[in-house]
Amino acid sequence: MRDGKIPVIIDCDPGHDDAVALALAFGSGQFDVKGVTTVAGNSTVDNTYANALKFLSFIGVCVEVAKGAAKPLLRQLTVAPNVHGTTGLDGTDLGDSRLKGSGRSAVELLTEILRTSSEKITLIPTGPLTNIATLFLAAPEVKENVEQIVLMGGAALEGNWTPAAEFNIFVDPEAARIVFESGVPITMVGLDVTHKALIYPDEIEALRKQGRIGKAIAELMDFYGIFYRKQFKGNPVHDAVAVAAVMCPDIISTQHLNVSVETCGEFTRGMTVVDFRGVTGKDPNCNVALGLDRESFIDLIFDAVRKLDESGAV
Amino acid sequence: MRDGKIPVIIDCDPGHDDAVALALAFGSGQFDVKGVTTVAGNSTVDNTYANALKFLSFIGVCVEVAKGAAKPLLRQLTVAPNVHGTTGLDGTDLGDSRLKGSGRSAVELLTEILRTSSEKITLIPTGPLTNIATLFLAAPEVKENVEQIVLMGGAALEGNWTPAAEFNIFVDPEAARIVFESGVPITMVGLDVTHKALIYPDEIEALRKQGRIGKAIAELMDFYGIFYRKQFKGNPVHDAVAVAAVMCPDIISTQHLNVSVETCGEFTRGMTVVDFRGVTGKDPNCNVALGLDRESFIDLIFDAVRKLDESGAV
Amino acid sequence: MRDGKIPVIIDCDPGHDDAVALALAFGSGQFDVKGVTTVAGNSTVDNTYANALKFLSFIGVCVEVAKGAAKPLLRQLTVAPNVHGTTGLDGTDLGDSRLKGSGRSAVELLTEILRTSSEKITLIPTGPLTNIATLFLAAPEVKENVEQIVLMGGAALEGNWTPAAEFNIFVDPEAARIVFESGVPITMVGLDVTHKALIYPDEIEALRKQGRIGKAIAELMDFYGIFYRKQFKGNPVHDAVAVAAVMCPDIISTQHLNVSVETCGEFTRGMTVVDFRGVTGKDPNCNVALGLDRESFIDLIFDAVRKLDESGAV
Amino acid sequence: MRDGKIPVIIDCDPGHDDAVALALAFGSGQFDVKGVTTVAGNSTVDNTYANALKFLSFIGVCVEVAKGAAKPLLRQLTVAPNVHGTTGLDGTDLGDSRLKGSGRSAVELLTEILRTSSEKITLIPTGPLTNIATLFLAAPEVKENVEQIVLMGGAALEGNWTPAAEFNIFVDPEAARIVFESGVPITMVGLDVTHKALIYPDEIEALRKQGRIGKAIAELMDFYGIFYRKQFKGNPVHDAVAVAAVMCPDIISTQHLNVSVETCGEFTRGMTVVDFRGVTGKDPNCNVALGLDRESFIDLIFDAVRKLDESGAV
Repeated sequence: MRDGKIPVIIDCDPGHDDAVALALAFGSGQFDVKGVTTVAGNSTVDNTYANALKFLSFIGVCVEVAKGAAKPLLRQLTVAPNVHGTTGLDGTDLGDSRLKGSGRSAVELLTEILRTSSEKITLIPTGPLTNIATLFLAAPEVKENVEQIVLMGGAALEGNWTPAAEFNIFVDPEAARIVFESGVPITMVGLDVTHKALIYPDEIEALRKQGRIGKAIAELMDFYGIFYRKQFKGNPVHDAVAVAAVMCPDIISTQHLNVSVETCGEFTRGMTVVDFRGVTGKDPNCNVALGLDRESFIDLIFDAVRKLDESGAV
Repeated sequence: MRDGKIPVIIDCDPGHDDAVALALAFGSGQFDVKGVTTVAGNSTVDNTYANALKFLSFIGVCVEVAKGAAKPLLRQLTVAPNVHGTTGLDGTDLGDSRLKGSGRSAVELLTEILRTSSEKITLIPTGPLTNIATLFLAAPEVKENVEQIVLMGGAALEGNWTPAAEFNIFVDPEAARIVFESGVPITMVGLDVTHKALIYPDEIEALRKQGRIGKAIAELMDFYGIFYRKQFKGNPVHDAVAVAAVMCPDIISTQHLNVSVETCGEFTRGMTVVDFRGVTGKDPNCNVALGLDRESFIDLIFDAVRKLDESGAV
Repeated sequence: MRDGKIPVIIDCDPGHDDAVALALAFGSGQFDVKGVTTVAGNSTVDNTYANALKFLSFIGVCVEVAKGAAKPLLRQLTVAPNVHGTTGLDGTDLGDSRLKGSGRSAVELLTEILRTSSEKITLIPTGPLTNIATLFLAAPEVKENVEQIVLMGGAALEGNWTPAAEFNIFVDPEAARIVFESGVPITMVGLDVTHKALIYPDEIEALRKQGRIGKAIAELMDFYGIFYRKQFKGNPVHDAVAVAAVMCPDIISTQHLNVSVETCGEFTRGMTVVDFRGVTGKDPNCNVALGLDRESFIDLIFDAVRKLDESGAV
Repeated sequence: MRDGKIPVIIDCDPGHDDAVALALAFGSGQFDVKGVTTVAGNSTVDNTYANALKFLSFIGVCVEVAKGAAKPLLRQLTVAPNVHGTTGLDGTDLGDSRLKGSGRSAVELLTEILRTSSEKITLIPTGPLTNIATLFLAAPEVKENVEQIVLMGGAALEGNWTPAAEFNIFVDPEAARIVFESGVPITMVGLDVTHKALIYPDEIEALRKQGRIGKAIAELMDFYGIFYRKQFKGNPVHDAVAVAAVMCPDIISTQHLNVSVETCGEFTRGMTVVDFRGVTGKDPNCNVALGLDRESFIDLIFDAVRKLDESGAV
């Protein structure tokens, strides 16, 4: 933990694990969340925007939420209803949102916050990198005011959407390439750690008993588990690891390595090619997360959800 | 010719033929040029920005000029000093610019103009499409206020920078793909017509005698001809054709066809693949210019340069 | 015409225009056809092999016919039933073949002929280049005994199967690359000339009256015309141009240029990228056919068919 | 171990680890080596052919050795002098070869053996797959007489020549694709196991004392270690694992999975993309070796070298 709240912007596509990431970010009390932006990915951007508003309203926080890109930079959109359902956040009833979304687009909100902030801000993207890439193209000078990017995406050793590629990077590989080559300090929280970030069934049951918000998250995990329990003994809460890693960097172990994003392969589109042995001669551009302290990670989630429930917000 | 001045924005990378395009646009009296934006291409963006300012100052016009992208969306920048010299506009002394550039970036200027205009505006890009693609990514709603895009770039039958690709599209194929797939009406003024848009040596001599501006343009053509006279009997004034085609659409003949931009080929990066026979089954997305009335085109240039010289602006 | 018969091997995928090519080769009396090999392309190799045997039997010639590759080197097979029907040679009844095929594979026959011939032999491939590429990989030393390759395939300016690629090269681009880079003298008889090699309806009617073989070829052209008459005023007899060009080189005009074969593009697979302006700096490796004397070409076909019919072979 | 000698052909590019593979194959007494073929890879094919002859002569065996492909199917040759020295087998003096090479090419020898053998034969390729792919293209019917292919090449998790690709597959990815899609049973002995197949310095010292052949192999390992000792605590004897896995399949553990070979990526050329989770829906085509019993593997090498030294051959 560090002194003072950490200024961040969360760019997400909720998404079940995005929802947990948001709960962690707001419940932990460790962050000054300057804004939340949404992007197409797990579902359409209309869905992910509505889901963000509903979930943030449900957990009783107030923050500007802006809608971002409806499709990847160059590609047709790929969505994941097999994982997240038709709404992108199936499994519980969050009610209507009392939050009204921003009148500004994600890129406008990101630009405004980064241009006017007196301190550097950490970006936490947990979906395809379309918004962040567009931001860096449209307003490259704001990179100076980005402290770091800690993103959920990519994989050093094995993909999920394809054998070579993780979903977020697969969906918009060109955006990922722009971000990875941006010169901004990047930590890649990829499948190498998020497939270890399992919340087990007994832990989900414990959450369910913890209050209104714990119960809703448990119900989200029930739906999310339909997909994941075929492969894993728990649910990998991918996106929340990125938030946790900003709050407690020690929760992950990393190596500083060069990562290139493949955009042209027949079988390897969206692969994050990690040069472990330095054979390319290219400079490192990324902290690649390879290890995770799962117990501490789960503790952070429980702690944050408990605080949200205790705050009594409705 | 149409009634009333045509509202346009010129996005360019001067560049010798860009300079002629600017002279045509401002000298013709047919356009309401809302702004000029610059992009990296024929030379670095610092050079093309400085060149635009100097040339516009030299021809005595006043317009907001904004600097745009320093490099393509994803690629390293390719420049063409073999054609345009080390400054990007070698061959004459334009003096210092009395124009001060905009404090805004190209994307900011484009966004502002398009958001606030009460009439639809035609975009005339004569360099790589980086700025236009970034605009459409960052502010997709402005597409509604774009009348059409008439761009210099691409080739239906034969490239120049490579056998398959024309320079502007080769430099930033991903940007081109975004623009061609944007849904905005597009006319592609490619090498198929611009290699016919030759200004012959005797015509250059006639220009040289026409006044201060005619002389400067003739000197620019002298330098530009060093490269082109190896292949052609005159200088292809590529970029000016796009401006001429907006002013006098009859100057070119077109076919409405599907055009796809290759981004992944080993030998075909940046090729504009034109489906003449409809074998792809894809809908047409582009008016492909295939024929040119060269004499009328040259007349337009002479007329515009004469008007500039007669206006006596210094 | 040259003195003495020209030793050739024809590697084909009949196919209607392949059939005319065979008629021309055997009827002209100008060739010493050492063998005929077949390949998958217009139809499966079982079909093209059967078609070659039937057609050669029908025109009364005796030659060793060997079956070649059933699929491209790396790719799945693409066939063209829209052009050639389900048999690959729909439209007339050629009866059963009295020719028995070779017990040897195409590569074995090619290797044997080329290794043992005391004179250099011209190869005339009129289908995908799978057999020829395999030959050059398996027995590279036989290249020394190849006089030249005059192939039907490719296009300098415009494809047919896709906007960028001609069918034969599209089907097996890797094979084409191997052949074009083999160092053997190559003449590419592509769509640039074969789309000019039209046999018009009145010429087909004249053929129909010329005897048993003329009538069969006219019937083949009737079927073949169903596809082509939508685009052209006659039927392009692609493959026969390659044979004609060996017999009478003056029938085509060529330029000696570098040609690269694209194997990786998203829209340009199988494109023959022709470097007309020498911008790649690569050495010429191909005579690219660009002009055709159509009347002389049609005369050669009529002459050959007449000789076949006059020979009275049944 | 199985009853009776195992009929095999070894296709190699010696190469230091190829030499150990040959020593293991011949010294073990477990194989009926029908022939040895050589290919360009670690060095030019002239070098690898000469090295195979010298090494086999040095260890006192008699076998037909045939020279194969001088370059990959489509690509320029990449060699590895940084690992294997300028000769491809630097580090010891093997003297002149008493073996004369075959008058036949690798493909001819492979075809002849496979066509005439009364039992199915196992192929053990330890270099780029150029010869095997060419064999399968030129004589596909011989696949019926191939028992299995146990090859050294590829990687499930991490490459060596590039971050994504292992050297042998990188050098000729198209050949690898042909072999992996051939339908023949394949075991891929890739870096996942061969980077565990380390011979440690003390083991090399023990070999050095074991006789004439042990000493030569130790000297080869000295040279080979210059490259590898920067990364590993021992020398990975890659190619010998493929031979060991044929002799003692239990020495490795495998999973039966789908493997696709990338031929078009910008950063992933030659990657063997392993579908661990079945996300592609493609059928398994490969036994992917993932675990190794290193001690047993080293024992096999010591045993084989001792037998060679005891046989007293000079």
